[in-house]
Amino acid sequence: MRYVNFSADGKTRQLGVLQGSTVVSLDDTTLEQLLAEGTDLVAWAQARRASGTEYKVDEVSLLPPLTKPGKIICVGLNYADHTNESPYDQPSYPTLFPRFNTSLMGHGAPMIRPLVSDSLDFEGEMAVVLGRGGRHVPLAQALDCVAGYSIFNDGSVREYQFKAPQWTVGKNFDATGAFGPTLVTADEVPAGGKGLKLETRLNGKVVQSANTDDMLFDVASLIAIISEAITLEAGDVIVSGTPAGIGWAREPKLIMRAGDVCEVEIEGLGVLRNVVQDEAPQR
Amino acid sequence: MRYVNFSADGKTRQLGVLQGSTVVSLDDTTLEQLLAEGTDLVAWAQARRASGTEYKVDEVSLLPPLTKPGKIICVGLNYADHTNESPYDQPSYPTLFPRFNTSLMGHGAPMIRPLVSDSLDFEGEMAVVLGRGGRHVPLAQALDCVAGYSIFNDGSVREYQFKAPQWTVGKNFDATGAFGPTLVTADEVPAGGKGLKLETRLNGKVVQSANTDDMLFDVASLIAIISEAITLEAGDVIVSGTPAGIGWAREPKLIMRAGDVCEVEIEGLGVLRNVVQDEAPQR
Repeated sequence: MRYVNFSADGKTRQLGVLQGSTVVSLDDTTLEQLLAEGTDLVAWAQARRASGTEYKVDEVSLLPPLTKPGKIICVGLNYADHTNESPYDQPSYPTLFPRFNTSLMGHGAPMIRPLVSDSLDFEGEMAVVLGRGGRHVPLAQALDCVAGYSIFNDGSVREYQFKAPQWTVGKNFDATGAFGPTLVTADEVPAGGKGLKLETRLNGKVVQSANTDDMLFDVASLIAIISEAITLEAGDVIVSGTPAGIGWAREPKLIMRAGDVCEVEIEGLGVLRNVVQDEAPQR
Repeated sequence: MRYVNFSADGKTRQLGVLQGSTVVSLDDTTLEQLLAEGTDLVAWAQARRASGTEYKVDEVSLLPPLTKPGKIICVGLNYADHTNESPYDQPSYPTLFPRFNTSLMGHGAPMIRPLVSDSLDFEGEMAVVLGRGGRHVPLAQALDCVAGYSIFNDGSVREYQFKAPQWTVGKNFDATGAFGPTLVTADEVPAGGKGLKLETRLNGKVVQSANTDDMLFDVASLIAIISEAITLEAGDVIVSGTPAGIGWAREPKLIMRAGDVCEVEIEGLGVLRNVVQDEAPQR
């Protein structure tokens, strides 16, 4: 099942499923709410989609599948080739940093280049949405926590990322974290989102090409390791890291500018597409 | 007004105010909700406290004033003497890292030392709770965003803080972020929480002693600078950094262990007291 959070017909927000190029509305609830209640997402949509309203996908505006996850834990340095292009040595433990909800936008929404910096960069990643959480989740049970998978473009304002030892601000400019287009339930994807081709394209040119098998800490390991410290909860999101190819590590640097089209495609999860737009000047 | 979030009488949670050693219940709502609605916290409590139920403060369990802030943005390296005792040079921009809500507990609740590491350390800090937000908040209007102030003990599992280049995991073990005892509304505190004595005591011995005037980025500057990148929202919390004296920088290291009593006192904001307890073993 491919869940979409969308607005259409002047209605602020609805939850639906994407079937081919048709969006079928299901309900006004949110995935956050369904996941908190332990809902079986496949059965829930199956029971409702026959009576839903149908829209063409290009008539609706897609929002992030979840707009207010309890936490968004991003993983840095999780592909060896990306660590090699970074100023860091490979740590033997996951490098975790946050996304705040205020930085999110959906498929098709503009990715905003802030006026304070000309250093906006792409990072294509697989996102993991939890349907269950816990503390000290055993590795063998970790994948039972996964409700589904999505795509993330971890838009990074590099100058700000490196103004201080912690990356938080450069990873959290408003409307730089693209999330979507859909939440694909875990039953439609190989266990752990393994073996999926990941490709980022900037203006049609491939800039990142990898496989989720290349992750140093796979999805099950991330859940088990993070939960040694932190209670994970239904609706939390883990953004699993980006492979090599980022623009900032190139010579000359490849920087995203207004009008650029950035697409992240992950096999079986779809294509997440956003156009870069300059921030509106302050009045 | 000194707001408390508390449980008593078998009721899960109520919102009230602390008056001397008496807690007066006001309502079942939350500060998150009141702040989102733009409530005047002083007038709201004044209108309700005459009809509230009274409890002795030692009959109630205090929770964090907010248990689910939209975001908790912590500031590292914000006192020069603390940067000097750290492995970092002083950055010219605020060093921001997150607290997730799952790491919070209130005054009087145990601070949990995880079994995986014997490196739990204290960090006494002033917390700032926003009643209003925005993007690109001008410096001159930044303090208008502040609803009130509180105390934070940013309990840090040092070994995990430094396992990777980002501090997130070491700052987010469950029940290591003490927050409280109350939210003191901004009218009761000098503008920007300026000039307040801050003291951390471990088993009665002073281990940190500073003044909030020593912050490199004061409260107004933090709000203005952070909002250049990130939309701040009512209910967000900024934890403003710790001064020198942390246990991990001492020779020999001073590590908190089960039974230790850690108190953070900030002039006008009260005393935040927590006893360290070992995590229960996994079955």
